[in-house]
Amino acid sequence: MRKKHATIDIAILGCGTVGGAAALALVKDRELLENKTGLSLNLKYIVDKNFDNAIKLGLSKKLFEPKLQTVLADPSVSIVVELIGGTTVAKDFIEKALMAKKNVVTANKALLAHSGAALLSLARKNHVTLAFEASCGGGIPIVRALVDGVVANRIDAIYGIVNGTCNYILTQMIGTGRSYQDALADAQKAGLAEANPSLDVSGTDSAHKLAILSSLAFGEKINFDSVPVTGIDSLQSMDVGFGGELGYVVKLIAMAIRLDGGLYLRVHPVFISREHPLAWVSGPFNAISLYGHRTGHTMYYGRGAGGPPTASAIVSDIVSTALGTQKLLFRHLGIWTDRTKKAKQIPYSEIVSRFYLRFMVNDAPGVLAKITAALGKNGISIASVLQKEIPEGAGRQRGKVPVVITTHMAKEKNVRKALTALRAAKLALENPVCLHIVDEREESF
Amino acid sequence: MRKKHATIDIAILGCGTVGGAAALALVKDRELLENKTGLSLNLKYIVDKNFDNAIKLGLSKKLFEPKLQTVLADPSVSIVVELIGGTTVAKDFIEKALMAKKNVVTANKALLAHSGAALLSLARKNHVTLAFEASCGGGIPIVRALVDGVVANRIDAIYGIVNGTCNYILTQMIGTGRSYQDALADAQKAGLAEANPSLDVSGTDSAHKLAILSSLAFGEKINFDSVPVTGIDSLQSMDVGFGGELGYVVKLIAMAIRLDGGLYLRVHPVFISREHPLAWVSGPFNAISLYGHRTGHTMYYGRGAGGPPTASAIVSDIVSTALGTQKLLFRHLGIWTDRTKKAKQIPYSEIVSRFYLRFMVNDAPGVLAKITAALGKNGISIASVLQKEIPEGAGRQRGKVPVVITTHMAKEKNVRKALTALRAAKLALENPVCLHIVDEREESF
Repeated sequence: MRKKHATIDIAILGCGTVGGAAALALVKDRELLENKTGLSLNLKYIVDKNFDNAIKLGLSKKLFEPKLQTVLADPSVSIVVELIGGTTVAKDFIEKALMAKKNVVTANKALLAHSGAALLSLARKNHVTLAFEASCGGGIPIVRALVDGVVANRIDAIYGIVNGTCNYILTQMIGTGRSYQDALADAQKAGLAEANPSLDVSGTDSAHKLAILSSLAFGEKINFDSVPVTGIDSLQSMDVGFGGELGYVVKLIAMAIRLDGGLYLRVHPVFISREHPLAWVSGPFNAISLYGHRTGHTMYYGRGAGGPPTASAIVSDIVSTALGTQKLLFRHLGIWTDRTKKAKQIPYSEIVSRFYLRFMVNDAPGVLAKITAALGKNGISIASVLQKEIPEGAGRQRGKVPVVITTHMAKEKNVRKALTALRAAKLALENPVCLHIVDEREESF
Repeated sequence: MRKKHATIDIAILGCGTVGGAAALALVKDRELLENKTGLSLNLKYIVDKNFDNAIKLGLSKKLFEPKLQTVLADPSVSIVVELIGGTTVAKDFIEKALMAKKNVVTANKALLAHSGAALLSLARKNHVTLAFEASCGGGIPIVRALVDGVVANRIDAIYGIVNGTCNYILTQMIGTGRSYQDALADAQKAGLAEANPSLDVSGTDSAHKLAILSSLAFGEKINFDSVPVTGIDSLQSMDVGFGGELGYVVKLIAMAIRLDGGLYLRVHPVFISREHPLAWVSGPFNAISLYGHRTGHTMYYGRGAGGPPTASAIVSDIVSTALGTQKLLFRHLGIWTDRTKKAKQIPYSEIVSRFYLRFMVNDAPGVLAKITAALGKNGISIASVLQKEIPEGAGRQRGKVPVVITTHMAKEKNVRKALTALRAAKLALENPVCLHIVDEREESF
């Protein structure tokens, strides 16, 4: 019945944090995996230019191989795991592996966001598979959830906290009132942000993951470059605090919503209600909320990065590739095929949302009336106004006071028009702060 | 490449809430499912004695079939979906379907908890599959997460809120201070508790799900009858309130933990910290936390019951059965095989935990000293003491006051010994209340 100990030879390309963790998982857990799957997963090669990390991890020198060609020419190798990262060498290596009829497993979100459809098409042409559970959400099996777990659903919306660095920084800012710069420094000290954190804090990494998840969820081709992305790097602690007073928590949300006219995709820091499950996803954890037309709201939570969690996702792909389930899913499900139509992505100016607005204004009579008038003129209805004295030292500037306004549902285009008018009229002394308030989606059953 | 529109004939047995919802999903979403999977899922029969619900749902009369034998004798039917429930007729029908070489999909947790291994064995003998995503967690793809998503992990612990009725009642009690009886009545009014709620509120339903999840997670045979189960029906609002003051939330947790000497399985209402993600799972929602040795903590959240969410799980099983992925997983993974060894289940008396204890005592000097002395004598170290005046009407009884004590880690056996002694000495005027305080598990990487 159960085939026992079929040996599967595997090569890992790239032995950094994730590559090293994946290699260790295969070597150390070989017996565990054999017991669970009936497969003998044999790490045969680690391809890299430099084996310092592999040596530090105690991996056997017999595994080291500097040349990709050796792996591609070895007919025993059926799975190649690309963990180099980036969109140049990694792309070249994946293409070569697929053309050599090797099944590929990758964690490379940047590459997939840009070239997913083309690479999957190349895999299909060569009758092999390309698996990428580790590209989104680290140890959270979110790719499987979308492709298999909630396959019976039309997905109406995705809301994801998919970058642990940003979520750690925001959790610090919320919990301690610290500034973005201080919280970033803290994350760097804790090893949770890179020396150059720009890919994370700019929202780009989240956008990569959103493009992948949306392609799977909606079965349409996403144009990555037309997804509007705002990072957390200009977020001010004053707004984090005011949001808190209003019952909101700031999160960097990667969202994709099915609307009547098409898809609305975006990455930006938004306020969500403290009541929503995503609000309590803290520190380096990630979570992805899906809204399906049968399931309603489901959510998937876990560590979105780090060696061992990502290795878990990689090994699960190795197992499903070796078992052949990957091939069946790949062949039958419309995962990113050439035939999928281009998504119609709705420009954000057309989006309707509630808004949090903060103006720095002259502490003079009549200013608030003029601001509310400008908003009203643009059809924006006000939900609440908060004007507070700022205590000494907390960003207080002589003669300037913050006015916080939350709106009812309004079109973003109109909000921007009002803000431009207020700036032009010198009523707003600085660029007004404008953040979306994202409400929980209604379940559609 | 992608096989298009292979037609799969399906029979549903039982057309109640879940059967009706599954039938509707297959009929209404046929095109959606065809687009997503390349499969034409054709509901051919609904087998039931009574078609009132089916008629109400607008399902075609052509589908109605009173005799199981017709389905079993029809060679075109490859998938039989058992949604009758219970452990008598359902068991008989599943066995007959498996012996007729039909693949079976079921949502029947009670049957699987008692007879899962035998039924899976029967399926294997007949070279067909038995899929049961819908048996646990409604629309949450938790069976897949365990079998496939986190396959690379040794699972160290499961903590589940797996009964929506109980969670709704507890959420009411926490939010409004209401009594169990009032909250139950409210749940019944909202259609979230049955007229006879005992299977839910006694914890039995949660225990069924725990037995299934544990079998999958640990690959060992669980003896359902030796899982200690305590329901929520004797929970007092006074304790919910005191727990809240101490920073805890009461949840009915189905837990399975891998300890040195074996597995510790249990269903009981416990206090968990307000900081733990499970604390925020409110109303009818369910969530399951898994702790894997590579992933660390992952959690899966969604609606644990109801027609459409459960139908989503059923259809996902129909799809994976039709695609053949179910067969591959079933053949290769050690899912509940005859060969799995019996789990060693650790008796709860040996368990070490923190405890919440409440005593009703005479409002007299020296009582607290005697209680703490009795605890100390049994090696139980006290973490905090809370003695409060009870306001008029809130369960106040003349001359009796509640004393709440939380302990440091202590063996349950010793706690019970101390409570027995205190009762014998008439220091505790009523049966003391004893609830576990469950701390978040440490991640093991």
